[in-house]
Amino acid sequence: MSVAESTRLVDLVQERIDEFLEERTPQLTGIAPEIGDFLGFSRDLLAGGKRFRALFCYWGWQSVSTPGVGFDLAEDASDDLPAVVSAAAALEVFHAAALVHDDIMDNSDTRRGRPAAHKRFESLHADNAWLGSPSAFGESAGLLLGDLLLGWSDEVFDDGLRTLSSATSAAAARREFNRMRTEVTVGQYLDIVEENAWRNHPESELLPRAHRVIVYKSAKYSVEAPLAIGAALGGATDEQTASLRGFGLPLGIAYQLRDDLLGVFGDPAVTGKPAGDDLREGKRTVIIALARTMLPANARTMLDELLGDPELDAQQVQVLQGVIRDSGAIDRVERIISHNVGLAKEALENAPLSASARSQLTELADTVITRES
Amino acid sequence: MSVAESTRLVDLVQERIDEFLEERTPQLTGIAPEIGDFLGFSRDLLAGGKRFRALFCYWGWQSVSTPGVGFDLAEDASDDLPAVVSAAAALEVFHAAALVHDDIMDNSDTRRGRPAAHKRFESLHADNAWLGSPSAFGESAGLLLGDLLLGWSDEVFDDGLRTLSSATSAAAARREFNRMRTEVTVGQYLDIVEENAWRNHPESELLPRAHRVIVYKSAKYSVEAPLAIGAALGGATDEQTASLRGFGLPLGIAYQLRDDLLGVFGDPAVTGKPAGDDLREGKRTVIIALARTMLPANARTMLDELLGDPELDAQQVQVLQGVIRDSGAIDRVERIISHNVGLAKEALENAPLSASARSQLTELADTVITRES
Repeated sequence: MSVAESTRLVDLVQERIDEFLEERTPQLTGIAPEIGDFLGFSRDLLAGGKRFRALFCYWGWQSVSTPGVGFDLAEDASDDLPAVVSAAAALEVFHAAALVHDDIMDNSDTRRGRPAAHKRFESLHADNAWLGSPSAFGESAGLLLGDLLLGWSDEVFDDGLRTLSSATSAAAARREFNRMRTEVTVGQYLDIVEENAWRNHPESELLPRAHRVIVYKSAKYSVEAPLAIGAALGGATDEQTASLRGFGLPLGIAYQLRDDLLGVFGDPAVTGKPAGDDLREGKRTVIIALARTMLPANARTMLDELLGDPELDAQQVQVLQGVIRDSGAIDRVERIISHNVGLAKEALENAPLSASARSQLTELADTVITRES
Repeated sequence: MSVAESTRLVDLVQERIDEFLEERTPQLTGIAPEIGDFLGFSRDLLAGGKRFRALFCYWGWQSVSTPGVGFDLAEDASDDLPAVVSAAAALEVFHAAALVHDDIMDNSDTRRGRPAAHKRFESLHADNAWLGSPSAFGESAGLLLGDLLLGWSDEVFDDGLRTLSSATSAAAARREFNRMRTEVTVGQYLDIVEENAWRNHPESELLPRAHRVIVYKSAKYSVEAPLAIGAALGGATDEQTASLRGFGLPLGIAYQLRDDLLGVFGDPAVTGKPAGDDLREGKRTVIIALARTMLPANARTMLDELLGDPELDAQQVQVLQGVIRDSGAIDRVERIISHNVGLAKEALENAPLSASARSQLTELADTVITRES
């Protein structure tokens, strides 16, 4: 039943997104027919994805809602359900914006197995044999598409808040949303600083620095903040919010560590990203920091030299994967993941949250951690 | 007195921006001390500028406010003044975000006579001798700074709306703000499409297409929307809003045409931008479209060949300036500017707006149009 509820929520979020894009279409194509491309790319970007953020938002709300209210999405749904669906949809629109900008910064050509947004604009340029540089046009157009989606995420979020039954809860949810936006942007900045500046820091700081990036760029953004936003929408007590944060932060850390492993060892057919993508990018992740502490000096030097070379070929990627595997860092990361998932689940035990939501959050934790893409 | 009122408004807007940054500082530096750079660059970016958008927002509000209320910022100011100051400040923060992203897209090295934000991050990288590409780091960091400022503009705007005395007016102002964000982003997209795709369109379409870009990217964004937001904050009637739009749109067109002239012929010492910046960028502005219709074929070919070459030297810039001057396009543009300013002022005559605001808007129109930077 809970799984069905999650599936239904994902459908409602998609409907909300489609409805929003539908509303915007006449406004935009009225300005210029060329804007159809902009809208089409937005629609594709916003179709699919794992919707973890929407789900955490929904279950955060459910976990603090009065028992008996809103537990059946079909019949006796709470009056606040549409507001929560809008807020959850807003998180997905925001995330799409972040991915569009991320792919420009990371020079990533693919996203979910399809060309990244800036690459689609690049193709539009090339296919029409326009003047100038297709890649410069692609990046500029992608930057603007991300900006548009950032603004829209805000509108969808406000649409939700406007219909929420409690103005106090709406204001609290808005504060969480704003904090999330600021923190994830700062986290991304720290991430690129780390990628470029790591050699300037003492060895002993590399692991804590990589950890800090995970916390702000990912753990809070992908799990803790969506839960806290959902909880705020439901008028959570401080104690309830603290329990959800206690669950969300370690789960979010585990989530990102799984992502880092997939970025190095993931199956391209499943992740929709080229093998070893993170190695070419040179992300200084926790797994890299750990591998470096565990490798002999010559292997560490090779790792440092190859990592971040955008031209790495398939064989070099395999060599790097082997070096990291042999370091024993995978086991260490798997143990950290398990430890964090344990902390997350512990935080739910006896938490002042609805029993059905606790069980659903536990299930969601397992899905998030065992995923392969 | 009105001039003093404008000056005082500009000061209040600066205070509001400083206060906002001050509030955010502990949150950000608490995450990581490196974020100090981020904040410092934001502060510099948000200091100064002409503040036209803030002024139009303020005078839009003043023009529809009950006579006697809010006309003296010092003593008997309306209770809504702080809300209006916040909204005006939000427009300036939004504009700073747009400029940061714009300078990345346009490859502009300078802004207001100082290095553009992405160039400052580039220097940070170079000065610290970090790994990798300083320019790639600069662009990524600039992109993130722009994203941060976009989110913040929203927060400052909401701060204003929250304290406004009328919830209906607040909702109307928010709708205008949202529309502005969407339209300016779409206008910028049309601008870069035009820059790249103009050769694919029939000659006869080039002028109307350049005009469409001006309307969405600039006239609505810089003048009409700030006025409409201000009017909405003051609870304007439909008739009042229509008068302000009737003033704002032609004035905005004139504003951008002045900008285009400055982009080609402006004095670098005054504009803070290199001479002929727009020529290297290859912007397909109204002045270029007009010059092309008025030039003999061989001069037109030369214009098309040189325009948009990022490597143009000072002499080539002078040659291009001469070609455009000799075409007679400057006179034509000046006449279009005068015509539009005339339309703008006409729209104010007998408009159902306060007399003092009408006279101040007229003065502001002259300032905007005769500016040299």
